[in-house]
Amino acid sequence: MRWSPRGGDAIDAAVSERDAVGFVAVSRGADPTSRYLTGREFDCDLVFVRVDGETHLRVPSTVEPPSLPVASVRVDDRPPGTAAAAVLAEHGASDGTVLAPRTVPHDAALHLESAGYDLASTPAVEAARAVKDDAERDAIEAAQRAATRGVGRAAAILSAATVEEADDGDDNGDDEQSVLHWDGAPLSTERLRRQVNATLAAEGVDAAGATTVRAGPRGDGGGGEPVELRPGEPIVVSVGPRGPTGYRGALARTFVVDPDGGWERRAHVACDAARKVSLAEADPGDDAGFLGSELRAETAAFGFSMADEVTRDVGGGIGLAAREDPPLDGDRELVAGNVLRVRAAVTHADHGRVELTDVLVVGDDGPRLLGGAPTGLDPSRW
Amino acid sequence: MRWSPRGGDAIDAAVSERDAVGFVAVSRGADPTSRYLTGREFDCDLVFVRVDGETHLRVPSTVEPPSLPVASVRVDDRPPGTAAAAVLAEHGASDGTVLAPRTVPHDAALHLESAGYDLASTPAVEAARAVKDDAERDAIEAAQRAATRGVGRAAAILSAATVEEADDGDDNGDDEQSVLHWDGAPLSTERLRRQVNATLAAEGVDAAGATTVRAGPRGDGGGGEPVELRPGEPIVVSVGPRGPTGYRGALARTFVVDPDGGWERRAHVACDAARKVSLAEADPGDDAGFLGSELRAETAAFGFSMADEVTRDVGGGIGLAAREDPPLDGDRELVAGNVLRVRAAVTHADHGRVELTDVLVVGDDGPRLLGGAPTGLDPSRW
Repeated sequence: MRWSPRGGDAIDAAVSERDAVGFVAVSRGADPTSRYLTGREFDCDLVFVRVDGETHLRVPSTVEPPSLPVASVRVDDRPPGTAAAAVLAEHGASDGTVLAPRTVPHDAALHLESAGYDLASTPAVEAARAVKDDAERDAIEAAQRAATRGVGRAAAILSAATVEEADDGDDNGDDEQSVLHWDGAPLSTERLRRQVNATLAAEGVDAAGATTVRAGPRGDGGGGEPVELRPGEPIVVSVGPRGPTGYRGALARTFVVDPDGGWERRAHVACDAARKVSLAEADPGDDAGFLGSELRAETAAFGFSMADEVTRDVGGGIGLAAREDPPLDGDRELVAGNVLRVRAAVTHADHGRVELTDVLVVGDDGPRLLGGAPTGLDPSRW
Repeated sequence: MRWSPRGGDAIDAAVSERDAVGFVAVSRGADPTSRYLTGREFDCDLVFVRVDGETHLRVPSTVEPPSLPVASVRVDDRPPGTAAAAVLAEHGASDGTVLAPRTVPHDAALHLESAGYDLASTPAVEAARAVKDDAERDAIEAAQRAATRGVGRAAAILSAATVEEADDGDDNGDDEQSVLHWDGAPLSTERLRRQVNATLAAEGVDAAGATTVRAGPRGDGGGGEPVELRPGEPIVVSVGPRGPTGYRGALARTFVVDPDGGWERRAHVACDAARKVSLAEADPGDDAGFLGSELRAETAAFGFSMADEVTRDVGGGIGLAAREDPPLDGDRELVAGNVLRVRAAVTHADHGRVELTDVLVVGDDGPRLLGGAPTGLDPSRW
């Protein structure tokens, strides 16, 4: 679980190329950039300064300063931009250009400028984060293996579930619908979600608030009330766990108990085909945006509407954040070391949703899917 | 689990008071401010604009636009500041002062300024977040109840654990130390952590990457390798779960199996006394910084060094973020509705750490601790 700071070389190269005197990043609370640059998660204000090829951190006096392999970690309660300017000045850089991510907090930027520095933005950290090294790839793969076990737990529960006549407690002859039961009680989206999360926890990863179970057209895609699961409707189980070093996985599968073989089967064939296309396309040198539009076009080719039914969210880079570079909608070239979340999904107002989400690594020898999760609709064949 | 946008009234009051034309917030990825303002978690770029007493959201085309009870949710792929300026202009505000949090991303601030607006920072959202309404308090209390069950699981395991002679597999007569066994195997910090997290998951909350188990002076406070647990040394179990609506709990307890009654007992008495002081002091109108310094002074009064042994991290506001307003080190006055994480902790290079962390609500009738977790060192008396 030890984990090292990253990105120093990329920052130093950008500083040198832009003839700058240093680099500053400022974060408040958990932030993928500061986690990447320090190898640790901070839940407080953090000032990161790179100057003369060395890293200096400043934290408020209200935290216990961490022990980290960097040039200095000190307490400074001044505003982050002022604290950063002090570090630069201490190291002989009392004016000149300072690089920062374009999203550096505005107040920190103003404090640096009023201390005499010119601020310029750099994409160096995002660019470095987009190309994973072996240890990062291994961390994502471990998260993805845990994700596979989490979704597998859902498959096992759905496969053991029985179909029971729902009883709404009255006798008025309204349309009582069958529901799934498991372990002596009705199975709701929330009950299934908790079981998946308990499995993720036992695997040593964090659910990261990303686990959703969505049933038919009724939810719970996010924020909705839990609903009871029914036979015949597609149930999408989606997880995005975070491993102990902060790297994320992403996996979604769709299951149907007692399928009637209609819409959801056609949607599933479309998603599965689109997924295979993405595998074939994701080579170094390929266009990331083209991969994204191919995923959508291939799904639509099975008779689904690009405008209303095929998801726009086909994925993009994944790592310390669930969404990072490269996006699958620009003109970026894929390079070896990119790790991508790849999603094919179709949504219909009456039938619900079918989705397949995976993580793949772009390697010198082509793409490789992580985790090895089966794709079928039948939970008993997991 | 339905949850509503908050903060609109506070923003409208600030806009009116400052004679501004609107308010803009921009976030990238999960962010407590945007979660507060929208009632939802976004894992993408999000532009929040408040103008004419209404809320407008803009998201990139690569996500599925959420359905939310606001005036508009639309796709806009332009840079966030440009997208925000377009919303303001659409609603008749083509110049004037625009308010934003001081940490608004610098690039968004520059785009707003180049579109003709004057940017001014406002603490309105942080101030609103610091005073919880009933539903927020209930959400934190629910997270804290789950936290209590999670730490209770650790207590149950430690109380069932047996003491076994460690066998390092050689015969060279080195100092073999006793270790704790549970369920047929040695009990490590990581094994205990996973059990706690599985309990949190089953309770429907997210571990949020915040669960740590620290044993004696050897770790694992964060980032270290897992170690096996031993009798006689203090074991700190700390959780900070996030409930389904995003609100956090915070609970830490210290346990000793087979205590020898020395340092850790004195440290525990100190922490427990400091905790009682905090309870007595936290009334509306009290000084938040004074509460923090009292917590430290009361702990030190039992013979611990303020400089080296008593934690500086005595807590502060908790809600959607683990650290928010009010901090316990400024000159802020406590008000009814503040919810505080309160921590008493002592660390020693040879003995390890003793810590007690709780959450309390500042109410009109005085402070109230949430969760009802026992405080003792003996896990069998939980």
